[in-house]
Amino acid sequence: MTDYIAPLEDMAFVLNELADFSQLSQIPGFEDATEDMVAAILEEAGKQAHSIISPLNKTGDLAGVQLTATHDVVTPEGFKEAYQQYIESGWSSLQFEPEYGGQGLPFSLAIPVQEMWHAANMAWGLCPLLSQGAIEAIASNASTELKERFLPRMIEGAWTGTMNLTEPQSGSDLATIRTKATPQGDHYLIKGQKIFITWGEHDMAENIIHLVLARLPDAPAGSKGISLFLVPKYLVNADGSLGDKNDCKAVSLEHKIGIHASPTCAMSYGDEEGAIGYLIGEKHKGLACMFTMMNNARLTVGLQGVAIAERAYQSALEYAGERVQGIPFGGDETTPIIGHPDVQRMLMTIKSLTEAGRAMAYQACTGVDFTEKLSDDIARLKMKRRVGVLTPMVKGWCTEMAQEATSLAVQVHGGMGFIEETGVGQYFRDARILPIYEGTNGIQSLDLIGRKTLFDKGVAMYELIEEMENFIETMQMKEEIGNELLSIFSEGVKELRQSVEFILVNGRNQALIGSISSNYLMLASYVVAGWQMMRTAEISLKHLANETDREEFYRNKVENSRFFIGQILPRSGAYFKAIKASSLCANTLKAS
Amino acid sequence: MTDYIAPLEDMAFVLNELADFSQLSQIPGFEDATEDMVAAILEEAGKQAHSIISPLNKTGDLAGVQLTATHDVVTPEGFKEAYQQYIESGWSSLQFEPEYGGQGLPFSLAIPVQEMWHAANMAWGLCPLLSQGAIEAIASNASTELKERFLPRMIEGAWTGTMNLTEPQSGSDLATIRTKATPQGDHYLIKGQKIFITWGEHDMAENIIHLVLARLPDAPAGSKGISLFLVPKYLVNADGSLGDKNDCKAVSLEHKIGIHASPTCAMSYGDEEGAIGYLIGEKHKGLACMFTMMNNARLTVGLQGVAIAERAYQSALEYAGERVQGIPFGGDETTPIIGHPDVQRMLMTIKSLTEAGRAMAYQACTGVDFTEKLSDDIARLKMKRRVGVLTPMVKGWCTEMAQEATSLAVQVHGGMGFIEETGVGQYFRDARILPIYEGTNGIQSLDLIGRKTLFDKGVAMYELIEEMENFIETMQMKEEIGNELLSIFSEGVKELRQSVEFILVNGRNQALIGSISSNYLMLASYVVAGWQMMRTAEISLKHLANETDREEFYRNKVENSRFFIGQILPRSGAYFKAIKASSLCANTLKAS
Repeated sequence: MTDYIAPLEDMAFVLNELADFSQLSQIPGFEDATEDMVAAILEEAGKQAHSIISPLNKTGDLAGVQLTATHDVVTPEGFKEAYQQYIESGWSSLQFEPEYGGQGLPFSLAIPVQEMWHAANMAWGLCPLLSQGAIEAIASNASTELKERFLPRMIEGAWTGTMNLTEPQSGSDLATIRTKATPQGDHYLIKGQKIFITWGEHDMAENIIHLVLARLPDAPAGSKGISLFLVPKYLVNADGSLGDKNDCKAVSLEHKIGIHASPTCAMSYGDEEGAIGYLIGEKHKGLACMFTMMNNARLTVGLQGVAIAERAYQSALEYAGERVQGIPFGGDETTPIIGHPDVQRMLMTIKSLTEAGRAMAYQACTGVDFTEKLSDDIARLKMKRRVGVLTPMVKGWCTEMAQEATSLAVQVHGGMGFIEETGVGQYFRDARILPIYEGTNGIQSLDLIGRKTLFDKGVAMYELIEEMENFIETMQMKEEIGNELLSIFSEGVKELRQSVEFILVNGRNQALIGSISSNYLMLASYVVAGWQMMRTAEISLKHLANETDREEFYRNKVENSRFFIGQILPRSGAYFKAIKASSLCANTLKAS
Repeated sequence: MTDYIAPLEDMAFVLNELADFSQLSQIPGFEDATEDMVAAILEEAGKQAHSIISPLNKTGDLAGVQLTATHDVVTPEGFKEAYQQYIESGWSSLQFEPEYGGQGLPFSLAIPVQEMWHAANMAWGLCPLLSQGAIEAIASNASTELKERFLPRMIEGAWTGTMNLTEPQSGSDLATIRTKATPQGDHYLIKGQKIFITWGEHDMAENIIHLVLARLPDAPAGSKGISLFLVPKYLVNADGSLGDKNDCKAVSLEHKIGIHASPTCAMSYGDEEGAIGYLIGEKHKGLACMFTMMNNARLTVGLQGVAIAERAYQSALEYAGERVQGIPFGGDETTPIIGHPDVQRMLMTIKSLTEAGRAMAYQACTGVDFTEKLSDDIARLKMKRRVGVLTPMVKGWCTEMAQEATSLAVQVHGGMGFIEETGVGQYFRDARILPIYEGTNGIQSLDLIGRKTLFDKGVAMYELIEEMENFIETMQMKEEIGNELLSIFSEGVKELRQSVEFILVNGRNQALIGSISSNYLMLASYVVAGWQMMRTAEISLKHLANETDREEFYRNKVENSRFFIGQILPRSGAYFKAIKASSLCANTLKAS
């Protein structure tokens, strides 16, 4: 199996032509982020993903990670060296503040780069993903002193970061956290057990900076009594040098369905005198601090869905081009299976899901940059609302479509797909974590329908719907796209509008709202994905109507968009009908 | 995690009330198969599945199978003993001819029993599944001499059977098989390599009877030059005693995504002088012989989908009842997660998919019995056509829904679902083989749209559609079900009728036919599943309108049916729209 090849052309198209990145580079502070610079960065990252990170994917899956008797975690061969090259190339600092050693580039430029790491090797890519979340939480909430002591080495990549939320009794519901923090001088002593800590311990970096949710002695019960602490694996002296080992350690590793090379640790804090930690942000407001990083982390988990779908596609496409089997329906000679219409259907499904997901994810990520940089208050707030509704869609939909994409890629391989040797099974197994972590997709659905629709009185959703309606009104390539496909999209937008109305009307029936939340998230996401594909078709058709030296690329984009609209988007109707019929289908299952 | 508990009440309901098993027992030869006897058999099988087979599922997954230097395969601890108990209890002989030691019971009675083995332990259950296929092929096609020599010990279960079709270059397209058979006296010498041979070698039985597709020296090229041979692991003397080891062996085992305890062997025949084999059926007509067993095997693979979905449901239901987490949307205190509406949605989705699949599968399987026993020619041929169209639906749809069901069961477990310890991950991994083996679901789609619709000129499909239309006409519980759900089902039936018309009109555009085949299979299956759920609702509502001592059971069946019709069946519209839009979405992907 060939190593991952970054789809540079599609990434650049989505970023520049769909996600308004070019407008971003006109904003003060982002002047450097020109199209040429973007192209150069993506090309360089693509090389590293292909030749260094991707070759470690399967060997890492086979080797897994080991916990030693001294509580160290041994990562698979080559992981450490690959990480060293990653930080030496400066990838870890792309989007962070120059003040602490970052390169000050847009978050959204880091996104295609990150997509490459995850596509090349999702297990490995999780280490930088978690570090970035920790950096964001510290940068947004910690004191200047803590920032100065910890951020430069973290942004440099020499130290990695983790998020310590989950405890055995406390998963989606963080209100029940029990880990304790006791004040002692300028710091706190942390005691407690955390589970599911991704890259909680490993041998790739000099230090690991744990962000830990815990309760102070005077904390009120529930979610309003949780504080956030910075707990380094090794204490850091005032001059930045490493001091003693802190009182925390990995006590076990989980045996998982996938991402075998990513250590998922149970962590113990304070088995001896207590782990030294420093408060980040205000007392009892730890959840809010955690959420500053969680939103971006949700976007990047959605991006992981795009990444692994792309990787699965490349694998399926390669196999379908090589495997000779059978005479296609209506054909007269044996061909590679890519010649079979049903294999085409599977490949096109993976491809169009992936590209729609990429469009949706990048769109949301440029939105994050606009949210931070737009000077106009009204525009900025509107953008913030937009990112707010797109975030659960990107996390929820892109990770669901990744299930379908990776499973179809297995299917394209036939019997070979079920054999681990092929490698495609790993994508299928790895991808299964995506709808679960960083807020399950059920949580995403409730976020969209609750906070982002009901509590928002539909403002953000109506803005989105109106923009899609306006798009339909003002489309210039209607004729080329044709009435039938156009009406599938228009129908989807109408269904979404009616669903929002239905939700606002039935807001008080919270059991009903809860029961339709998942269908609503999926409906909204399919329509938004369809919008991006309609925009893709519109833009590509315009290029084709004029002179272009990328005729094949744009023609493929049009075909791919047509496939998405005609073959995938009709699913929106199934979600819509389910929403409408929801009150007729009582969910009253009892535990047996 | 609790061991599997057979859903005896639902199985009996589906068999007796939906699948017309009671009519079957009025046919001469099946008089013994009374409702009471069925209940007794299911209860006994349920005990064995629960206490003997199910406890070996996870240990078997962890231990896997080993190939020794002497080409023996070591199965996980306990497998051999469980198999011994299985044959001692007479389970292997249920549906076979008394002439060769079988119990002469209906095939469809063996179906719920088999569902239990697969639900308890799919990897283990594959051994009897393959044996039964081999028995059927021998019983239908072999000479009396071969039948007398081999069938009694196979039916008894002392010897198991295998199907040897696939070769490295020959998967879905069996026309390219290269294994050679050279005549020598009363037998043939077989030489060649076969791959993906399920339970091709193991230590649970005294002998293994391989059915092997191979070519005679004078064979024409292609699929019309393939013959079927019986190749025993140990030669069998005229008196039935075991003779020399034959010249065949397992040379490697595959490392797979799931069913780790089921040995998937690469087999080598004739490394020395040639493996002794006996012709089954006519020369060059081996594929037809193989298909006599393949049809039933396809039904039982669909049944495996039902089985593993049921197992996943039980696991998810148990976890959801125990895991306390979070305050439900609109609630005011923390509850077990089964109290959350979105968890209800997931559980109900798994449950209703599973029960719809069971209804469809059992229906097809009683159809097999009717096909063999009905004395009226017209009725028998009609039933044969019906089983013909249901077979690809059962194989295709029940194995696709098993993907969704097992994945949702993982999701209900949240983070714990991704950890192998929980066990639910194994169902997810095991289930992934189902859409692939015994004819990929792509092959099933082409079978339905090609042989079973186009070449049949739509006769069988129109019969099916008319029966559904008549059902709607004559329904007695319309009011209780309500117009909205009724119209979702009616809409589905209409979509199916229009799709058949579309297919018959466009039959010559074979590339188009190929490209819509999967959508057509899924559409047809959802509608047929919806029909079974409407029938379930109708029958259950009638019971509830009268005196019944099983009020809770029937009420649950009504709720479950309503959920399926209102929340799941609307998917049919998405497939229908995709079919209609197919000509607008060219599939012209090229290998990169």
